[in-house]
Amino acid sequence: MSLALADIRAAANRIAPHVQRTPVLSNAALDHASGAQLFFKCESLQAAGAFKSRGACNAVFALSDAAAAPGVVAHSSGNHGAALARAAQRRGVPCTIVMPHNASVAKVRNVESYGGRVVFCAPSLAAREAACAGLIADSGATLVHPFDDYHVMAGQGTAALELLEEVPELDLILCPVGGGGLICGTAVAAKGVRPTLSVIGVEPALGDDVTQSFRTGRRVAIATPATIADGLRSNVTGERNFPLIQQHVDDFVTVTEAEIVAAMRLAWEALHVVIEPSSAVAFAAVHAEKIAVRGKKVGIILTGGNVDLDKLPWLHS
Amino acid sequence: MSLALADIRAAANRIAPHVQRTPVLSNAALDHASGAQLFFKCESLQAAGAFKSRGACNAVFALSDAAAAPGVVAHSSGNHGAALARAAQRRGVPCTIVMPHNASVAKVRNVESYGGRVVFCAPSLAAREAACAGLIADSGATLVHPFDDYHVMAGQGTAALELLEEVPELDLILCPVGGGGLICGTAVAAKGVRPTLSVIGVEPALGDDVTQSFRTGRRVAIATPATIADGLRSNVTGERNFPLIQQHVDDFVTVTEAEIVAAMRLAWEALHVVIEPSSAVAFAAVHAEKIAVRGKKVGIILTGGNVDLDKLPWLHS
Repeated sequence: MSLALADIRAAANRIAPHVQRTPVLSNAALDHASGAQLFFKCESLQAAGAFKSRGACNAVFALSDAAAAPGVVAHSSGNHGAALARAAQRRGVPCTIVMPHNASVAKVRNVESYGGRVVFCAPSLAAREAACAGLIADSGATLVHPFDDYHVMAGQGTAALELLEEVPELDLILCPVGGGGLICGTAVAAKGVRPTLSVIGVEPALGDDVTQSFRTGRRVAIATPATIADGLRSNVTGERNFPLIQQHVDDFVTVTEAEIVAAMRLAWEALHVVIEPSSAVAFAAVHAEKIAVRGKKVGIILTGGNVDLDKLPWLHS
Repeated sequence: MSLALADIRAAANRIAPHVQRTPVLSNAALDHASGAQLFFKCESLQAAGAFKSRGACNAVFALSDAAAAPGVVAHSSGNHGAALARAAQRRGVPCTIVMPHNASVAKVRNVESYGGRVVFCAPSLAAREAACAGLIADSGATLVHPFDDYHVMAGQGTAALELLEEVPELDLILCPVGGGGLICGTAVAAKGVRPTLSVIGVEPALGDDVTQSFRTGRRVAIATPATIADGLRSNVTGERNFPLIQQHVDDFVTVTEAEIVAAMRLAWEALHVVIEPSSAVAFAAVHAEKIAVRGKKVGIILTGGNVDLDKLPWLHS
């Protein structure tokens, strides 16, 4: 199996009863400032507060009854965990989420609010994977990887399908990149529907593993990134994701922590949406002029809205 | 002239090219907590960040070319001013806004960003009206009152029309009340489309002039309210608004400042929308259990999203 447009269309049908069709916002002032037409796909308004509900629902509802019964397990910096807990709750099967002990309180509560059980581990990929493996050996549950999974990628790609239905003539789609789930789904969906469109991934400069991998042609692993964009702290491109990225993604750019915070604040102020730092990286690339957008129609995926409102980055310098 | 459903339908057609059709959000956790089905009409995502764009566009585009040419003038605690400046800019006519000197910086900048001229005055209705009268005498501009104006009320009512198109079986609509523009439009629209529906207005307890007027049957004037809900600081019901309120609105309730802040924060956290304190009062009435909503389908109008992100009320106790 790999990932094709047909898989993403199938995912859209499968998850339709379980996710929101999110609005696409535009803003005259932001268009004027950038010289482009910007279309913000608001996955921060998605069920469970992030696009992750799309991939999680597709993975959970694609399981046979027998495979689903023992439940699902994942490691997640937060939003995938909440989304998977919600998907499992809707299917009526158990869910256990392995989270790093430095995950935000809001994200832990979010998992628990959907009936998910949270197990904590050290904030490294190795620790997360070991904890998951133990849980699976004990229970027979199915691992739903946050990004290195074709069903998850297919689900994530449905956001781009919707965006292109509303704005068919897009020139460019920008999306935040963690492990590569969203950008693979986005690129396969977008290029499938509109081959002339460009897809550019944006990473925090502090966590540029996918950018490095794309440039060097091999999966570069870095130390766990210390970026404020906590949804993008994965430190290596997915094994299944990397060849799809090499084939379908046009380019990558990176943004600084200050650029992320500035873009996050501007989105709150101008668009009136609560987005988390990870969500802001794609808009940050436009706002900090890392990408030439003048005269173009640009889709920007705002990926999630789960933040700790007591710890807003512009109030804690 | 008074206000009828036909006026609101005409307004909807007139303003369609100039405003957004805003999304209606729902949230499983908030539904569960309230025992109701809550439908949030997100006018915080409206052009210029508030429902006020609806009324302002209707008033400006209803003017003849000759009447429009000298421009428009208003007094406003903020959002009506920005909305009127934007409407005037779209029509290509000048706009001057009289604002109280304690208006938030964000709201002043918002007016100026649409090419509006801001003139400051003391924070009282008398001072605002005197300043407007002077400007009108000098320029021949048309006053567009923020609420005591049938075209403005008709425009504001278009939000309820859209909400009922999406959720036709609503039992109840709750809306924040300042001078009475939104609730008159809402009540006439909603009762016109669905006579069995109830419309309840919500005011800050610190600024309950309309509630007092409704209870006593006469237009009660109070001191300028000191509520955090700065969009609701009008201190007397509009002259044209009051009879419509008496005829069409079912009841009023009030909420405390703490209830407003709690509801505002919860909306940010659960719905991932940036709403201003004035926007939160209707949801506050549900969250603080001031209204019996269990088992009902409840429409809640989130009126605006213009806040100063450096001064969030839960961070400054």
